[in-house]
Amino acid sequence: MRMFLFTLLTVLASTAFQIVRSGATINDVPQFFSREGSIAELWQMGTNASTVTLYGSQLSTCTQRVELILKEKDVPYIFVPVNLKEKEQKSEAHLSMQPFGQVPVLIDGSMQLFESRAIGRYIAARYPFRGAPLYPMVNITRMAWTEQAASVELTDFDPVLSGLLFEMISKGGKPDMKRVQYLKDQLISKMQGYERILSKQKYLAGDALTIADLFHLPVGTAAIKKLDLIWYDGFPNIERWWKDISSRPAWKEIESR
Amino acid sequence: MRMFLFTLLTVLASTAFQIVRSGATINDVPQFFSREGSIAELWQMGTNASTVTLYGSQLSTCTQRVELILKEKDVPYIFVPVNLKEKEQKSEAHLSMQPFGQVPVLIDGSMQLFESRAIGRYIAARYPFRGAPLYPMVNITRMAWTEQAASVELTDFDPVLSGLLFEMISKGGKPDMKRVQYLKDQLISKMQGYERILSKQKYLAGDALTIADLFHLPVGTAAIKKLDLIWYDGFPNIERWWKDISSRPAWKEIESR
Repeated sequence: MRMFLFTLLTVLASTAFQIVRSGATINDVPQFFSREGSIAELWQMGTNASTVTLYGSQLSTCTQRVELILKEKDVPYIFVPVNLKEKEQKSEAHLSMQPFGQVPVLIDGSMQLFESRAIGRYIAARYPFRGAPLYPMVNITRMAWTEQAASVELTDFDPVLSGLLFEMISKGGKPDMKRVQYLKDQLISKMQGYERILSKQKYLAGDALTIADLFHLPVGTAAIKKLDLIWYDGFPNIERWWKDISSRPAWKEIESR
Repeated sequence: MRMFLFTLLTVLASTAFQIVRSGATINDVPQFFSREGSIAELWQMGTNASTVTLYGSQLSTCTQRVELILKEKDVPYIFVPVNLKEKEQKSEAHLSMQPFGQVPVLIDGSMQLFESRAIGRYIAARYPFRGAPLYPMVNITRMAWTEQAASVELTDFDPVLSGLLFEMISKGGKPDMKRVQYLKDQLISKMQGYERILSKQKYLAGDALTIADLFHLPVGTAAIKKLDLIWYDGFPNIERWWKDISSRPAWKEIESR
């Protein structure tokens, strides 16, 4: 405890010195130490959970993505099913929470949020000391690597596999074969990029697991199960990474339901 | 200055109290006050810029996105053109920086980064006191709203307009008209969501401009100019928002070259 306080005071004194040296003025302070969500509040919130409610569907990969992060961060939540077949997501009540008529939506105290990846970042940032550390928010270098990897998931991985799932499954047996071929060609070129990254490091943002790795699990698993597509075939480092993240207990629990 | 120091010390004392009260142990400290990219370093970096180098192409919307954030944050940079026609982005030298063979890549001191939106977040976080405040990184609530809006740009806006640009322009006069119709139908449904958001607030993450708004400018402008598509037609709040962000001097400078 004495060691902890010493480290803490050294860091705080150094911070104060740096702030003064930076020439920041009183107007700059609120940006970093505002009342809502300050560092102080963040530390406090890390141990005190309010009631978290998730509106979604167990069939939706985006809902699964949020459930995965909640379980990895050991945050208890109430699940409210939205019936997608009955188009409940297009009701006025749901549209008031999600302007595009989609799932999921998260409610955490007075906070209301949509977009699964934004929710994932929020949960990881709000509960830093629960479950696995997944989001190095105040470390600029590691945060930038995490954001780089999260952007790769959303621009290089998801469009290809979600596109194939849409053509082969969602369109009910009427795939556009030209588009399927285009997506399959894209897949190979994207996997070459993933293999380059994962041949140098254990995970996508470095040697530590982050939300960016976990974001891949719902769609990556759906492609294997529904399309019978081992998309990492022939890429040994992607396969090693996939077997690692897909065997995590939180994901095993979700995919086995 | 005295007022500033008083505020600062109060905040630091409160932070220390909260940290101790949270029951955090010595093992938790490195996550928040690590050597690379600590809060202290962040404040310092906010005023001291190292040499920033951007590898890209002025024709690439992703490169334009990074240039826009650099200009908005008033960060000087050296531009190194990558010749896309000569496929320089697929050279081994470039692949060692960007594993997917794309532009842009940013170098900032020892930091090397790709993915335009990750670079945008990084610049905004690393230079908080230069230019426009665009990324409320330590305010969890506002950060979550910013991430929600950034995710909307990448999942609801970009795929539709980039998809139309790809079909109508990049494929050299051989558009797949079934896909064009699908994307045009998607566009209307997405614009309805944007109108719902922007009828309640000035910008996508609330009443303050963020990186999420700016991320829309390159592709949104390309769709208007190259496809002659006024995609916000009939949506008064989107039009108001678009005229606001697209008239910013930093963007005017980039689009007029």
